[in-house]
Amino acid sequence: MSPGSEKPRRRTGRRPGSSTAREDIVKAATDLFARQGYDVTSLRAVSRAAGVDPALVHHYFGDKNGLLEAVLVDLVRPTAVFQDVIENPTGEDVGERLVRAFLGLWDADETREPLLALVRASFSNEHAAERLGGFMTGNLLARIIGDVNEATMRAALIGSQFVGLAFARYVLALEPLASADSDTLVKMVGPTVQRYLTAPSDELVGVHD
Amino acid sequence: MSPGSEKPRRRTGRRPGSSTAREDIVKAATDLFARQGYDVTSLRAVSRAAGVDPALVHHYFGDKNGLLEAVLVDLVRPTAVFQDVIENPTGEDVGERLVRAFLGLWDADETREPLLALVRASFSNEHAAERLGGFMTGNLLARIIGDVNEATMRAALIGSQFVGLAFARYVLALEPLASADSDTLVKMVGPTVQRYLTAPSDELVGVHD
Repeated sequence: MSPGSEKPRRRTGRRPGSSTAREDIVKAATDLFARQGYDVTSLRAVSRAAGVDPALVHHYFGDKNGLLEAVLVDLVRPTAVFQDVIENPTGEDVGERLVRAFLGLWDADETREPLLALVRASFSNEHAAERLGGFMTGNLLARIIGDVNEATMRAALIGSQFVGLAFARYVLALEPLASADSDTLVKMVGPTVQRYLTAPSDELVGVHD
Repeated sequence: MSPGSEKPRRRTGRRPGSSTAREDIVKAATDLFARQGYDVTSLRAVSRAAGVDPALVHHYFGDKNGLLEAVLVDLVRPTAVFQDVIENPTGEDVGERLVRAFLGLWDADETREPLLALVRASFSNEHAAERLGGFMTGNLLARIIGDVNEATMRAALIGSQFVGLAFARYVLALEPLASADSDTLVKMVGPTVQRYLTAPSDELVGVHD
C-alpha cells in the first residue's frame, strides 16, 4: 500500500545509520529467518541482504538474539495487533478477542512463515527458545493480563494453548482444525483463554510465582 | 525392571526375523531419532544399530514413515498409558485423567526425548507431521473420544492443547509452567480438555467433518 513497501530491498551507497537502516536490517533478518531458518542465518548474511555494514547490525542489535527480539516485536507489533485487547482487557469476550488477534497474526503469510521459523528454531537453540517464550509471556501477554494474581502462570497457560493451536493448525495440519475458519476457532478456543485469564486463584494451586 | 530391559542393544549372529528383531529395530530407531534427529537418521543406520539386515527393516516397516509410526506406538503404548481413560471415558474428571496420562509420557526422559525429536521433525518433514498428527488424533484421541459428534474436531482441539503444553513446558521452558508439578497442571488444564470433550455441538459451529 504505502510507497515504502515497494522500495527495493537492497540499496547501495546508504549512509551508515540512516533512518531506515535499522528497519531494513529487521526486514532482511525476518526474510532470511523465514526462508533458510534462524540457526543457519549469520549476521553477515543479514547485513549483506540489508545492504549495510555488519558493524551496524552489531551496533543496533548486539547479537543474533537481540535481532530475533527485534524481528518478533516487528512481526507481532504488540500495540497494533493486540491494541483492542490492551485497551479493553476485561469482559466476557476478552478470550475470544485475544484468539482472534492471535489468529490474525498466523493467517497472514508474511507473519506466519517467520513465526514458524522462530518456533522451529526454539527446538535447536536454547537462546531462541528463551527469547520466544519471554517475548510471548513477558512483552505480549503480561501487558494484556496486567497485575493480577498468578499473572505469569496465566500468561504461560494462554501461551501453551496459542502455540499449540498454531502448531496443530499450521505444522501438523490437523483436520478439521486446519481448515476451520477463524470464527469457529475463536468460538471454540476463546473460552479456554477466558478461563486461563479469569479462573480464581485457588484453581491455580501449587503455583509459586 | 524386566530382564529384557538390561539386554545389550547390539547383538551379532541373530537369525533374521527372530522374535525380538522387530522390537530391537524399534528401540534402535527410537534411540537414534532422539539423539540425532529423525531427518538425518537413515534406515541403514537403524539396521546397523539394531544389528539386523537392512532388508529386515524394510520387511517390517516399509519405509521410514512406517518406522516412525511404530516408534510412536511403542513410545505411547495407547492401551497402557491411557488404559484408565479408555476404560472409563466419561465422568467429570476424564479431562483431568487425560492430562495426567499425557504428562506421564512427557515427564519420563525415555519418552520425552524421542517425542520431542518427532515433534521437531514435523517442522521440516511433511510426512512426519502427517504421521504424528494422524497418530495423535486417529490412534490415540479417537479411541478415547469415541463416536460422538464432531469427534475429529474435539480430538484436534485436545491435541492442540496437549502439544502446546508439551512445547511450552519442555521446549520454551515457560515459567512457572515448566517447573509446576503435575497435580497443578492437571487441575489447570483438565477443565480445558473436559470442555473440548463435552462441549455441546452448537459451540462447534461451522465445522464440517
